[in-house]
Amino acid sequence: MGKRIYNFNAGPAALPLPVLERIQAEFLDYKGSGMSVTELSHRSKWFDDIINEAVERTKRLLNLDDQFDVLFIQGGASLQFCMVPMNLALEGRPVGYLNTGSWSTKAIKEARVQGKEVHVIASSEDKDFSYIPKGFKVDPNIAYLHFTSNNTIKGTQWAKFPEAGNVPLISDMSSDIMSRPFDVKPFGLVYAGAQKNIGPSGTALAILRKDMLDRVPDGLPSMLKYSTYAEKNSLYNTPSCFVVYTIGLVLQWLEETIGGLENMERINKEKAGILYDYIDRSDFYRGTAERESRSLMNVTFRLSSEELEARFVAEALKQDLGGLKGHRSVGGCRASVYNAMGIDGVKALVDFMKAFENKEG
Amino acid sequence: MGKRIYNFNAGPAALPLPVLERIQAEFLDYKGSGMSVTELSHRSKWFDDIINEAVERTKRLLNLDDQFDVLFIQGGASLQFCMVPMNLALEGRPVGYLNTGSWSTKAIKEARVQGKEVHVIASSEDKDFSYIPKGFKVDPNIAYLHFTSNNTIKGTQWAKFPEAGNVPLISDMSSDIMSRPFDVKPFGLVYAGAQKNIGPSGTALAILRKDMLDRVPDGLPSMLKYSTYAEKNSLYNTPSCFVVYTIGLVLQWLEETIGGLENMERINKEKAGILYDYIDRSDFYRGTAERESRSLMNVTFRLSSEELEARFVAEALKQDLGGLKGHRSVGGCRASVYNAMGIDGVKALVDFMKAFENKEG
Repeated sequence: MGKRIYNFNAGPAALPLPVLERIQAEFLDYKGSGMSVTELSHRSKWFDDIINEAVERTKRLLNLDDQFDVLFIQGGASLQFCMVPMNLALEGRPVGYLNTGSWSTKAIKEARVQGKEVHVIASSEDKDFSYIPKGFKVDPNIAYLHFTSNNTIKGTQWAKFPEAGNVPLISDMSSDIMSRPFDVKPFGLVYAGAQKNIGPSGTALAILRKDMLDRVPDGLPSMLKYSTYAEKNSLYNTPSCFVVYTIGLVLQWLEETIGGLENMERINKEKAGILYDYIDRSDFYRGTAERESRSLMNVTFRLSSEELEARFVAEALKQDLGGLKGHRSVGGCRASVYNAMGIDGVKALVDFMKAFENKEG
Repeated sequence: MGKRIYNFNAGPAALPLPVLERIQAEFLDYKGSGMSVTELSHRSKWFDDIINEAVERTKRLLNLDDQFDVLFIQGGASLQFCMVPMNLALEGRPVGYLNTGSWSTKAIKEARVQGKEVHVIASSEDKDFSYIPKGFKVDPNIAYLHFTSNNTIKGTQWAKFPEAGNVPLISDMSSDIMSRPFDVKPFGLVYAGAQKNIGPSGTALAILRKDMLDRVPDGLPSMLKYSTYAEKNSLYNTPSCFVVYTIGLVLQWLEETIGGLENMERINKEKAGILYDYIDRSDFYRGTAERESRSLMNVTFRLSSEELEARFVAEALKQDLGGLKGHRSVGGCRASVYNAMGIDGVKALVDFMKAFENKEG
């Protein structure tokens, strides 16, 4: 099959090898159709089954009842930054945001661009977004409370979600969707770009509580209304068929091979634990996020100099450990250990970190 | 490789077999990276090369000079229906549309939803969109003139593009982009959903004349501004990486195997000619588009009853000729013969049509 490396990319990211192998095996002839999955009509029985299966698996994995719609919307989380205030703000009431990093900041900017009154309910900008805020009070008048559940760049994550009473929560879960179970009831909307935990880039998964559809204002363009997607099972226009298909296969792997989100969370905790334990025992590597705010998905750390960090990343790649460079906006190192990264990969990384420390430390 | 049928789907549609085989062969290890192309960071050198190559091939195939940007935007042509008036209308001036079918009608609707003053310069709605209008006059005051170059549902196509003097043309070329050469100079914007002639679904290719960027109003959401894509080489956010990669491979096939758009047009004329010649000689099949407006991409025809049409489609599929059912909004039969359909497929279809006529006629 050629070479395979341990891929610590932050997104697009590693996918489960059995999923990739299945795509490869059936790529020229999908289920005896005589067509590639990329050549199927989105109005065919084959594709209906594909999208319905992806929806049903999402509902089972997250225990969604009929109050929720599962939607596939092109444009990634970035388009959601604008669709959320466009669809879900309420006349005469502010919208609430928690600011825990670059992605939250972008979401806030897109709400302001539209002239919405944004209340930033809490922020961790004072300490360079190295922690998750707590002890804040949520104004009950806001139309929604938006937060980023996991911050890929700074390596922080909401271990426990904020509480907002009757205010619907909205969360960008791009980088930790399907990595752990959670109670979806307080959420009006959860959205996630697929390219970290559940598939290739090119689609956001959106989980919308149906009462939110009452908020969608008249006069929006068809492609920017949640109702368009909800009414047509995401088939108003041609969806990103290959991405939806791959998401379905990843969710099948999550259900049938991993055994669901409780198991996935246990594995993810073990993986991140191995890395953080080693970083905490070392004086050579230094974690950047506050301990109780640490992400199970993106383990961010620094070495003593940028020059050493560059050498770390380059030598790791020679050992087939890829994608360890931190985000271009902050530098440093980052190991993204999403669902598809196995414990073997994390152990190989720690072995390399030890060897590098022994050589350079 | 499993079975392969002749795939006459209207979109998503057939892709060149050598492209599919290449994707399959390198799917687990892209160019020795040890990663699938779906797992590469969009900020990596690998993906930079992929997107730059797709851009450069587009420029060479269409003879674009530096006045044009080549962009990849998620959301398909349907999102362009709203982005066009949002970005390219001009204060106090109407926008012009030519209405030749369902897709033009949707584009017009999305301009009106935004409150734009739409002038429908010409329409073929009077004869059920069975022809391409001519002899109309273009009001020089309109901000742009929008038309659909090929109408997949009704099987008509602009053989010669409308002339609008100094008014920039804007065209939805979703179903005939890269099927023939054309002079791009009069165009302010050409856009095309990828899933018919150039790739899988999930991205629109947009060719934007740079002076159009001056029209983009302040205050638009980032993801809905052409300038966001133009300034960042379509990498402001994560693009639909797999689709861009596949488009690049299809364009490589067009350049290196087919030998460019003049050759492609010659082959496409031959293919459509074989089908139309047979339909014109037969009393059993009846073409639905006026002769001089006929599409080289979508050959639409009727049989004497819906019941016979249903049997035609079903029996064709048994002979491995798929996707021949007309659009759900109009019924009848349709053979879509985009770039990837070879002459062998068209000949096999005519052989079947003859046999079916002999049996049923």
